[in-house]
Amino acid sequence: MSMTTDVQKNLMLFSGRAHPELAEAVAKQLNVEVTPQTARDFANGEIFVRFEESVRGSDAFVMQSCPAPMNHWIMEMLIMIDALKRGSAKRITAILPFYPYARQDKKHRGREPISARLIADLLKTAGADRIITVDLHTDQIQGFFDGPVDHMHAQGQLAEYVRTNYGTDNICVVSPDAGRVKVGEKWADALDGAPMAFVHKTRDPDVPNQIKSNRVVGDVAGKTCVLIDDMIDTGGTIAGAVTVLKEAGAGDVIIATTHGVFSEPAATRLASCGAKEVIATDTLPIPPEKQFENLTVLSMAPLLAQTIKEVFENGSVTSLFNGSA
Amino acid sequence: MSMTTDVQKNLMLFSGRAHPELAEAVAKQLNVEVTPQTARDFANGEIFVRFEESVRGSDAFVMQSCPAPMNHWIMEMLIMIDALKRGSAKRITAILPFYPYARQDKKHRGREPISARLIADLLKTAGADRIITVDLHTDQIQGFFDGPVDHMHAQGQLAEYVRTNYGTDNICVVSPDAGRVKVGEKWADALDGAPMAFVHKTRDPDVPNQIKSNRVVGDVAGKTCVLIDDMIDTGGTIAGAVTVLKEAGAGDVIIATTHGVFSEPAATRLASCGAKEVIATDTLPIPPEKQFENLTVLSMAPLLAQTIKEVFENGSVTSLFNGSA
Amino acid sequence: MSMTTDVQKNLMLFSGRAHPELAEAVAKQLNVEVTPQTARDFANGEIFVRFEESVRGSDAFVMQSCPAPMNHWIMEMLIMIDALKRGSAKRITAILPFYPYARQDKKHRGREPISARLIADLLKTAGADRIITVDLHTDQIQGFFDGPVDHMHAQGQLAEYVRTNYGTDNICVVSPDAGRVKVGEKWADALDGAPMAFVHKTRDPDVPNQIKSNRVVGDVAGKTCVLIDDMIDTGGTIAGAVTVLKEAGAGDVIIATTHGVFSEPAATRLASCGAKEVIATDTLPIPPEKQFENLTVLSMAPLLAQTIKEVFENGSVTSLFNGSA
Amino acid sequence: MSMTTDVQKNLMLFSGRAHPELAEAVAKQLNVEVTPQTARDFANGEIFVRFEESVRGSDAFVMQSCPAPMNHWIMEMLIMIDALKRGSAKRITAILPFYPYARQDKKHRGREPISARLIADLLKTAGADRIITVDLHTDQIQGFFDGPVDHMHAQGQLAEYVRTNYGTDNICVVSPDAGRVKVGEKWADALDGAPMAFVHKTRDPDVPNQIKSNRVVGDVAGKTCVLIDDMIDTGGTIAGAVTVLKEAGAGDVIIATTHGVFSEPAATRLASCGAKEVIATDTLPIPPEKQFENLTVLSMAPLLAQTIKEVFENGSVTSLFNGSA
Amino acid sequence: MSMTTDVQKNLMLFSGRAHPELAEAVAKQLNVEVTPQTARDFANGEIFVRFEESVRGSDAFVMQSCPAPMNHWIMEMLIMIDALKRGSAKRITAILPFYPYARQDKKHRGREPISARLIADLLKTAGADRIITVDLHTDQIQGFFDGPVDHMHAQGQLAEYVRTNYGTDNICVVSPDAGRVKVGEKWADALDGAPMAFVHKTRDPDVPNQIKSNRVVGDVAGKTCVLIDDMIDTGGTIAGAVTVLKEAGAGDVIIATTHGVFSEPAATRLASCGAKEVIATDTLPIPPEKQFENLTVLSMAPLLAQTIKEVFENGSVTSLFNGSA
Amino acid sequence: MSMTTDVQKNLMLFSGRAHPELAEAVAKQLNVEVTPQTARDFANGEIFVRFEESVRGSDAFVMQSCPAPMNHWIMEMLIMIDALKRGSAKRITAILPFYPYARQDKKHRGREPISARLIADLLKTAGADRIITVDLHTDQIQGFFDGPVDHMHAQGQLAEYVRTNYGTDNICVVSPDAGRVKVGEKWADALDGAPMAFVHKTRDPDVPNQIKSNRVVGDVAGKTCVLIDDMIDTGGTIAGAVTVLKEAGAGDVIIATTHGVFSEPAATRLASCGAKEVIATDTLPIPPEKQFENLTVLSMAPLLAQTIKEVFENGSVTSLFNGSA
Repeated sequence: MSMTTDVQKNLMLFSGRAHPELAEAVAKQLNVEVTPQTARDFANGEIFVRFEESVRGSDAFVMQSCPAPMNHWIMEMLIMIDALKRGSAKRITAILPFYPYARQDKKHRGREPISARLIADLLKTAGADRIITVDLHTDQIQGFFDGPVDHMHAQGQLAEYVRTNYGTDNICVVSPDAGRVKVGEKWADALDGAPMAFVHKTRDPDVPNQIKSNRVVGDVAGKTCVLIDDMIDTGGTIAGAVTVLKEAGAGDVIIATTHGVFSEPAATRLASCGAKEVIATDTLPIPPEKQFENLTVLSMAPLLAQTIKEVFENGSVTSLFNGSA
Repeated sequence: MSMTTDVQKNLMLFSGRAHPELAEAVAKQLNVEVTPQTARDFANGEIFVRFEESVRGSDAFVMQSCPAPMNHWIMEMLIMIDALKRGSAKRITAILPFYPYARQDKKHRGREPISARLIADLLKTAGADRIITVDLHTDQIQGFFDGPVDHMHAQGQLAEYVRTNYGTDNICVVSPDAGRVKVGEKWADALDGAPMAFVHKTRDPDVPNQIKSNRVVGDVAGKTCVLIDDMIDTGGTIAGAVTVLKEAGAGDVIIATTHGVFSEPAATRLASCGAKEVIATDTLPIPPEKQFENLTVLSMAPLLAQTIKEVFENGSVTSLFNGSA
Repeated sequence: MSMTTDVQKNLMLFSGRAHPELAEAVAKQLNVEVTPQTARDFANGEIFVRFEESVRGSDAFVMQSCPAPMNHWIMEMLIMIDALKRGSAKRITAILPFYPYARQDKKHRGREPISARLIADLLKTAGADRIITVDLHTDQIQGFFDGPVDHMHAQGQLAEYVRTNYGTDNICVVSPDAGRVKVGEKWADALDGAPMAFVHKTRDPDVPNQIKSNRVVGDVAGKTCVLIDDMIDTGGTIAGAVTVLKEAGAGDVIIATTHGVFSEPAATRLASCGAKEVIATDTLPIPPEKQFENLTVLSMAPLLAQTIKEVFENGSVTSLFNGSA
Repeated sequence: MSMTTDVQKNLMLFSGRAHPELAEAVAKQLNVEVTPQTARDFANGEIFVRFEESVRGSDAFVMQSCPAPMNHWIMEMLIMIDALKRGSAKRITAILPFYPYARQDKKHRGREPISARLIADLLKTAGADRIITVDLHTDQIQGFFDGPVDHMHAQGQLAEYVRTNYGTDNICVVSPDAGRVKVGEKWADALDGAPMAFVHKTRDPDVPNQIKSNRVVGDVAGKTCVLIDDMIDTGGTIAGAVTVLKEAGAGDVIIATTHGVFSEPAATRLASCGAKEVIATDTLPIPPEKQFENLTVLSMAPLLAQTIKEVFENGSVTSLFNGSA
Repeated sequence: MSMTTDVQKNLMLFSGRAHPELAEAVAKQLNVEVTPQTARDFANGEIFVRFEESVRGSDAFVMQSCPAPMNHWIMEMLIMIDALKRGSAKRITAILPFYPYARQDKKHRGREPISARLIADLLKTAGADRIITVDLHTDQIQGFFDGPVDHMHAQGQLAEYVRTNYGTDNICVVSPDAGRVKVGEKWADALDGAPMAFVHKTRDPDVPNQIKSNRVVGDVAGKTCVLIDDMIDTGGTIAGAVTVLKEAGAGDVIIATTHGVFSEPAATRLASCGAKEVIATDTLPIPPEKQFENLTVLSMAPLLAQTIKEVFENGSVTSLFNGSA
Repeated sequence: MSMTTDVQKNLMLFSGRAHPELAEAVAKQLNVEVTPQTARDFANGEIFVRFEESVRGSDAFVMQSCPAPMNHWIMEMLIMIDALKRGSAKRITAILPFYPYARQDKKHRGREPISARLIADLLKTAGADRIITVDLHTDQIQGFFDGPVDHMHAQGQLAEYVRTNYGTDNICVVSPDAGRVKVGEKWADALDGAPMAFVHKTRDPDVPNQIKSNRVVGDVAGKTCVLIDDMIDTGGTIAGAVTVLKEAGAGDVIIATTHGVFSEPAATRLASCGAKEVIATDTLPIPPEKQFENLTVLSMAPLLAQTIKEVFENGSVTSLFNGSA
């Protein structure tokens, strides 16, 4: 004589304090509410979190974007996950629209950390069962996490926007450095096989890490250049790329990026670098002081909501991204 | 035919950027140098660390105090430990003179994290083999780490200072709340069996977490009260305790604490609360703006150096603390 | 073409042999049966366990109280959990009404174990996913387990009994030592803000661990003292506390404890120590030879059953304890 | 406001490329389809696998038998499990009808691996939650895996075949070496308490691992001998056993084995060794070149399908095997 | 500027309280002292352990034999290992002359534990890096531990004793059940290729686990039978084997076993079963009440000491046992 | 009274059977011998390994290159590591001159494995403490392993060879696809800032994974093109790249690669593709049937030996590679 009952599952959405607007937008799309919580900072910087409702048995999705102060928001996410684990959530999915420390994905030189792997391990240790993220700096970061990673792409939306507004006839896809050429090739495919170029940085062998000159490899003269990058931080590299493209005779330059980090002085630089338009998404908050005239922001909320729904209902995320997620 | 060599071990000291003065003082005591490193913050808050010397095979001791912005310094320590692990350090000892999130050592209510345990797990995950720390908020936190914890105590130095400057004849040891009475008992033993008291906070059952009144339990009239606490953050509790002690007829009130967090407005409060002297240690940096007239700071550097030396040379840390570490 | 079916969950209750009465009482409350099993001791002390029914896919709750011989019962629980894990139980909740080795929750001195953490790790290793327990010696032990711990409290029932039988007008809450004052404060809150006192033990610095004298701190004269403790083992400390309270002029002394360990000679001591009544719960078996005239035993079975039900049905345990579990 | 839905579970069957016939036979019994997948070998031996359908949330059963080239098939299984884990399967059961490296279940001498344990750990690391297997070389291998192992037995079918075709009156159960006598005893029980014998191999102490002579222990004269073994590889041992049995006056010799590894020159040896019939199962593929005239192959597909069904539906596997699985 | 020093290693021997005589004998052989410790039982069965000397950096060898009350001694060992780990021992070797729960090395039927694996995992969890043990019930148990196991054998000493006292001319090696025949074969090799026999137990298929009859398989008439077993508990099986051997016409019967568990009524049974001599070792304590007239006890201390020395000095344990350890 | 001794460490070199020539060459450089071992394949493909000498306490370096049949050699390495772990090696370094499954370092599409991460986890599970490898397909794979990875580069030797034989005046560095451009940039730096180009593959959006055309991006007319790649498998991509370079007017084409996988029909293709010279290293065996006229093979043995020596002696590997390892 035992006690038997049907099993139901219950999607609960949680949000850190770094980018509540995105979580609200996702919640609205899903027609759920962000679970109310108490979250505050103590005077010495410690974070305290407590959920206002029982999370027992829930399928918990915890969103946290990581703008500056990044480490504060990382720790908040880890603490929220710990509280969910100890509060008996059934499954915990960490949603990181912008994966922190993604650029530290390898040892560039000896005696360096691989912080992107560390982040994956910290999330696992805190209790995350799975990760949803958008446009990792390198795809290999998926392999840093010991569990499922749903890797979403903003490229579809960004490329569609470019196609609609600029056509594909006179387009050239440009990577601002050698490391993004592979991604550039995907853009070229998406824009009807557009030609490609990239900026080649030469280094002075006598001065470590010193860039000597930038050269454009590929033919950009007279072309509408779509300069792509996964993230733009202070904007120095990308603005420099616009300059060398213009020097190489490029026509209009359009900048397209997923993650608008836009640290000082990105707004000034991007506004004045000569690019016709800068297209970004809202994976990170872009408060008024980071905005500028020729900036266009596309929202990832619908796609995030759809992804969460597929994950919750055991559908297919892969099919949302033409097989590539 | 194999290759054989004697084994030597090599103590290397590393320091995060939160409290370099303490690391330098320890290094001086040990007659070693803090290992040179590059450490900087990117514009979006990411930390980058690289060691300037090979750490291969070293017995690495990594010091990091955690004042505000605490999460930034925690993450720096984790990243340093990751870099040491990947750089083939043989053993990694994390030295946390002030253990972060120590107050979150249990679920006070449901759906809360146990962040002090989380911190222990994060350190382990990053690669720490062992921990050295000073005066944990509760002794049980030792048990949160899956490995050796050398738990140092500042009480010996603090009590010795009190004895030298105030004698033990008319002393009463006072705990500012019910949770510190156990520690107070150790102080009473150290001060020749001085009498004890504590401040009893009553709560209003109708208003959660609302203090209704403070009462002194124990006889403090005319006594020189040594008001003890492991840490003082904004100083509200401790200043309130001085007030009720004075109302209860106490003589001079001396405040003794290990960790001088001293968040705003602690300096103002402590300077004006009526205490004759505030004694703290340098487990946390106390920059000029946190200092005030009646503050005395004792240095933990000699004891930290001695502890590191015992650990390195397989001596006994326990014997440094009369068996209690 | 795959095979699809609805998911049901199935609560199964298991009991070790240490305290079957409690398991039966809980089963009755839940209207289930304790799952039949074979459990026996071999001649050399080895335990053998086998379940008589399939446990595949079950939500298994395994109860074991740990009276003497404690290590025998701990091992039985670990073996039962191993058998459940290997028998494909879906989730395993270890119910420890009395958490073993709870007093060894820190290194009091160097070179000691932290056995309470060890117990948590052994349970995890055997296969326990979660723990339910009652009134831990210190709340921090929750943090020893890497998973959810539902921490129940008997205080509500005990305090209600005191209120009903003794009122709250002339009550004073007394902690028998410095370490319980914090818990005493909760009792004081529950008894309408009753005043507090505690017994201060002074130690002889020349003789390690030697108590020199006991003093009452706080005013107990003429008061009905409620002397509280989480557990009473041989009763020496608590009986001594009654004596000093009486010497300090206390009126009636009532002893309230959650865990009646009552090792020899507790029954004799408690019967003759001068206390008017001793109130305990049935988290541990109290066989006839441990009972005495002024002992009252309250049953935890209803609360345990309700907690299991909430856990099984993804309800809220926190709400059963006014937010404090 | 959260999103709630009923939970269904979904059995999906996957098959490596080593023995697709068995997987198809099991699928047919279960009335499901083996999930379509892409699996191919690169020129340098690397395996690539991709599933054609979403596996998210599925209760995945992955079958792989491990004939030569064994390591290739082991790695394919590990890679399939990794893909299932990263593709968010809910539970992953590895079905190994023939457990690889089962003979390396202990260190026979120093400096040897225990490869059977290694295999269990590799499966766990890749992501397997549970194992289903048939007739392990030694039962203890169950304990190598940290999780549930459903250990199926072919003996019931094999013994039933013997009983039907040879009766039990004049039967003697023979173990070909000292290590199988225990299993022989189970056969003797199953065949109405038939008498037993075994072949005793003596070793020359001066030449390590050199067999000096084979002796039959037990009385086989005139008996129909059922020579049993868990697996037959090259057939040398078993053919040698037939010879000594014949020399000892045995009547007909029937060979019964679960796993027909049948490496060269097993087919020739077994066909000509003097045994009347060789009975095996299809846990491993037996392609035409391994077959021979007096070979009978019984299919394990029905029992495997039934076991999978019990596991999926939380029934009892134990009951399928009279309590012994 | 770092601090460098030569590395020395330091063997420290520790002993649980179950069998101090063996530890003392080993210590004497090694010319070291058993490290002094405090170990006691609390009234409710809890064990407390504290080492009297610093264990920091030591190569710690912890001996514990596990007679009844077995679980008590297992827990003591786990607690000692925990204290060593937290006290910063460098390497911890658990020495289990008699491995507890070795008979529970597989699931004989469904829903059983595999307690021998559990023990291995508990040791690992507590902090044991390696194991030294003697004559495991089955060799496969080595594979239960995730780390090095030095598996010692008493057979060399036991067989040498038999050879010296009984010669090898008329010897027959007899296994008391089907599961020991493999070990018997090693004995036969060691005794110049002596013939073998075993006792075949038949079971009644209608009454589970009920022995129906015992038969001797093999020719024992007139032989001096060496009846071997890894352990003798209550002696029922082995005494029964003597009876059937005598019935089958055997000459003298000598019993040889490694582990003399000798639970009640073993002494009586063995003294009166008709065996000429019973040879055992001191892996377990054999107090006066367990001894009997025809019992000979060989000491394992010299071999244990030699093994520890080889392990400490990175020599070869394998070579102590002719390659078989 | 304990036993104390100095600690020595002992480098032992082990080699799998896939590429013994490289191990012998490294051993010669180090002036040690490859440890003798027994390694053989059973008829059904199982591998058996046993070391002929004690490995206890050794600093073990295990080399295995992974040509076809790759999975066989991977498993051999795992088994060797298991044997070392169980044989009490002190530290185990896996040396993989060619890291297997490196191309499966991410999910290109949904429901794929990340086999390169799986390999890292399998090595860890078997017992590897650290990895030494050469020119990973992507640097991020370092982060797949939870421990130190010494990542060696062959580029220095390869580029030096090019410089010596072809000068740097008219050189153009060409990447055969978009993913290698980043590595090409390092080559360009090493060849005095040579210009760059890459082959842009366009895909037909209507036919998945179908290359539509190859275009050269960058100016190669009249240049001596150094076509670089980390590995060449069947040579299709690289031979195609030579063709399009020639069509684009390139002068001589030199192919430089670290890993000469050279699966069929690589030798034919490379010999006839129009390249003037193909330069590779011996990280993989290049048996006669894979060789061809214009092939030059540089040996990595000296650099591997130097790296092992630095690791063994706690020197700096980073310094061997100008800070980049």
